[in-house]
Amino acid sequence: MQLILLSGGSGTRLWPLSNDARSKQFLKLLPAGPDPDRCESMIQRMVRQIRQSGIPAHLTVATSYAQRDSVTSQLDGPFDIVVEPSRRKTFPAIILACQYLHLVKRLPPDETVIVLPCDAFTDEVYFQRIKEMAAAVERRAADLLVMGIRPTYPSAKYGYILPGHPIPGSQAVAIRQFVEKPDPDRAARLIAQGARWNGGVFAFRLGYLLRISRRYIQADTYDEVLARYSTLPAISFDREVVEKADSLAMIPFDGPWKDLGTWNTLTDEITLTKFGNVITDDTVAGTHIFNNLDIPLLCLGTTDLVVAASPDGIIVTEKSKSENVKHYVSRLRRRPMYEERRWGKYKVISHSRFDDGFEALTKQLTLNPGCAISYQRHTHRDETWTFIDGEGILILEDERRPVRRGETVHILKGQRHALKAVSSLTFIEVQTGSPLIEEDIERFPLTW
Amino acid sequence: MQLILLSGGSGTRLWPLSNDARSKQFLKLLPAGPDPDRCESMIQRMVRQIRQSGIPAHLTVATSYAQRDSVTSQLDGPFDIVVEPSRRKTFPAIILACQYLHLVKRLPPDETVIVLPCDAFTDEVYFQRIKEMAAAVERRAADLLVMGIRPTYPSAKYGYILPGHPIPGSQAVAIRQFVEKPDPDRAARLIAQGARWNGGVFAFRLGYLLRISRRYIQADTYDEVLARYSTLPAISFDREVVEKADSLAMIPFDGPWKDLGTWNTLTDEITLTKFGNVITDDTVAGTHIFNNLDIPLLCLGTTDLVVAASPDGIIVTEKSKSENVKHYVSRLRRRPMYEERRWGKYKVISHSRFDDGFEALTKQLTLNPGCAISYQRHTHRDETWTFIDGEGILILEDERRPVRRGETVHILKGQRHALKAVSSLTFIEVQTGSPLIEEDIERFPLTW
Repeated sequence: MQLILLSGGSGTRLWPLSNDARSKQFLKLLPAGPDPDRCESMIQRMVRQIRQSGIPAHLTVATSYAQRDSVTSQLDGPFDIVVEPSRRKTFPAIILACQYLHLVKRLPPDETVIVLPCDAFTDEVYFQRIKEMAAAVERRAADLLVMGIRPTYPSAKYGYILPGHPIPGSQAVAIRQFVEKPDPDRAARLIAQGARWNGGVFAFRLGYLLRISRRYIQADTYDEVLARYSTLPAISFDREVVEKADSLAMIPFDGPWKDLGTWNTLTDEITLTKFGNVITDDTVAGTHIFNNLDIPLLCLGTTDLVVAASPDGIIVTEKSKSENVKHYVSRLRRRPMYEERRWGKYKVISHSRFDDGFEALTKQLTLNPGCAISYQRHTHRDETWTFIDGEGILILEDERRPVRRGETVHILKGQRHALKAVSSLTFIEVQTGSPLIEEDIERFPLTW
Repeated sequence: MQLILLSGGSGTRLWPLSNDARSKQFLKLLPAGPDPDRCESMIQRMVRQIRQSGIPAHLTVATSYAQRDSVTSQLDGPFDIVVEPSRRKTFPAIILACQYLHLVKRLPPDETVIVLPCDAFTDEVYFQRIKEMAAAVERRAADLLVMGIRPTYPSAKYGYILPGHPIPGSQAVAIRQFVEKPDPDRAARLIAQGARWNGGVFAFRLGYLLRISRRYIQADTYDEVLARYSTLPAISFDREVVEKADSLAMIPFDGPWKDLGTWNTLTDEITLTKFGNVITDDTVAGTHIFNNLDIPLLCLGTTDLVVAASPDGIIVTEKSKSENVKHYVSRLRRRPMYEERRWGKYKVISHSRFDDGFEALTKQLTLNPGCAISYQRHTHRDETWTFIDGEGILILEDERRPVRRGETVHILKGQRHALKAVSSLTFIEVQTGSPLIEEDIERFPLTW
């Protein structure tokens, strides 16, 4: 049995803590146990719950290139990772993951596959229902099983599933109709008729999806699938598979379920109210404060606010207004100002653009011990590195030398360079160019 | 006639926009005319009002070393500046300014002197009353004249003056009693008896204060006064002079007068509600937002807040709670993270301190065209400069060379260096040392 955990999506809804490289599912904000200071991210919680549930399944995480390093740095234990060559929607992502199970892992067509999102906030019963979904697939109750979440309010942002008759010999029920994102009035009428939310959990045999896949991609190797990935329609799995399925059934789930998509819904589940360098007075009430900056954040007398600060920006919002953030963030879009990568992390600490187009970008980077950045050169920018902590090995134009804190190196346009950390290595990098181009990087093979 | 404008005081009350080098009187937030985008600072407004009032007086600004560059960069026109060697209270500051008028400007003892604070928010009638104070001094109504502000509420933070009989031949009245910072109940009773606030405006003949000064300092030159400045008691002029005076009278002022000391009182007078990179939705009400950072600040649905962000920190406060900021800022005290200086400006963009005491401080500095930083060397730190805009001349260990954007220089401990801007010159400076010491600077004479 295989679990495919979908970790994709853009990072604008919990701006400024989330960004393109750091989606909401990676924010370590949820209580991870009785100690209020121990926090975990949504994806860490989901994987912990999967493992605690005892589902006898191997885990594969399907993610984007931008999120790959966050996935590998946050998750322990055995799992496979499938990286989309470009960011598309859930239908191509699930096709890719299934082709990986088929062509790389060589799993048989009758292997049961469960697809689930990584950002549902739910309890252990959810995973018991997932086992029921797998059992229904194995008993051939239908080709495709979906989970039906009990609605808590007539939301206009979910798909609704109207159930039909029970399917004998299983806990599944047939499906009469799908209704995608109805207005609240229609949603209320659907709920009165017993409709459920489509929570994005699907179960099927691997062969079922491979047959669908063949309509879009003919490929004998996984590399071929990757190469043709951009030809798959950028459409949701619901739209392209679920709504068109001939043999379909639902397993209902009545337990707690929340989509922690806005600051308002997320902060309901967060026990701690202060993260980072935050000071409040005694009259602050109902206010969650997240400070990812080095500077102090002082809150006095506020009520029912979310305050969040990161190198990307600052938000101060009434909790009830927080879901509107997405309308504004598109106006603010710029390069992510901090990222955690497999090799370490960086943050942008200053960016200046002058009238004639010349730019300077200053970053603070930390390489984890033993990690390296690739052998590379830039065409449009010079870089000055000042090492402020740790020791490493620098290669500059084929010359190799040790570097340590206090030293400086100036790398000119066209000079090949690489860097490996011996101990945790931190440096300030000043990039200058006219203009700076983010993709201005040419990589070379190197064995350390 | 001489006006002494007192510009001192620490910068904690409007944190984080104000700091030790940038007190509230330098914040350019007040409307400067019909164009809502043109703003001026408190001290700029005060000097503009003084000049518009037509008071026939020469201006001397008494300030601290930390504020000197802000004074000279914000004020135009003719004025003298007196800089305290160390920060003390108003009594020593007024003594120093009067000795400057006597020993440097060689003014006669019968010269009329007016002392006034730079941060009162008031109207043109205030300056007409100052003329009456000068006239009362000239008519010898009393040795010392104070201005009595009509109280607007029983404040516990001001001194109160109980008036006595009118003084014939002048608009002045005698003074029965001073009461310093009474509790609100007593303040209300004092107001019922006709008491007024002491607004810190004083008038006297220069010789009057020189006689008082001689009890503390015997000096024939201004340099001697500077050298002995620290022996003067650190006490207010009210306490040491006004309350002990034998011959004293008051000129009342009934017009508008406000001490813009807290975010709450200040924002009442600020027409603009958004400063810097700020975005709000339509439901934001009564919220003033000040963003001195490069990153965007988004406010949704907030009511009656002040939000202010600078490299020193971030505050989010209910307006009515904003006066409590001073209790918290002492806990946050650290080096000012940005300053405007005579030669230009700088901001700290990153500061790291490692477990073993090693530190790295990254600044972005801009030198104004033609300005230079002194010929100097450091004992405890190395510096790496990367020039990102403009052109200048660098001296490093007696060698002189032009520098321009894109170039880097590494200055080791003990190396003498100086820099002069030809055009506006911006560079990133990374200081490293173990630990960094702010006063680690030895200066050498240099003629460019």
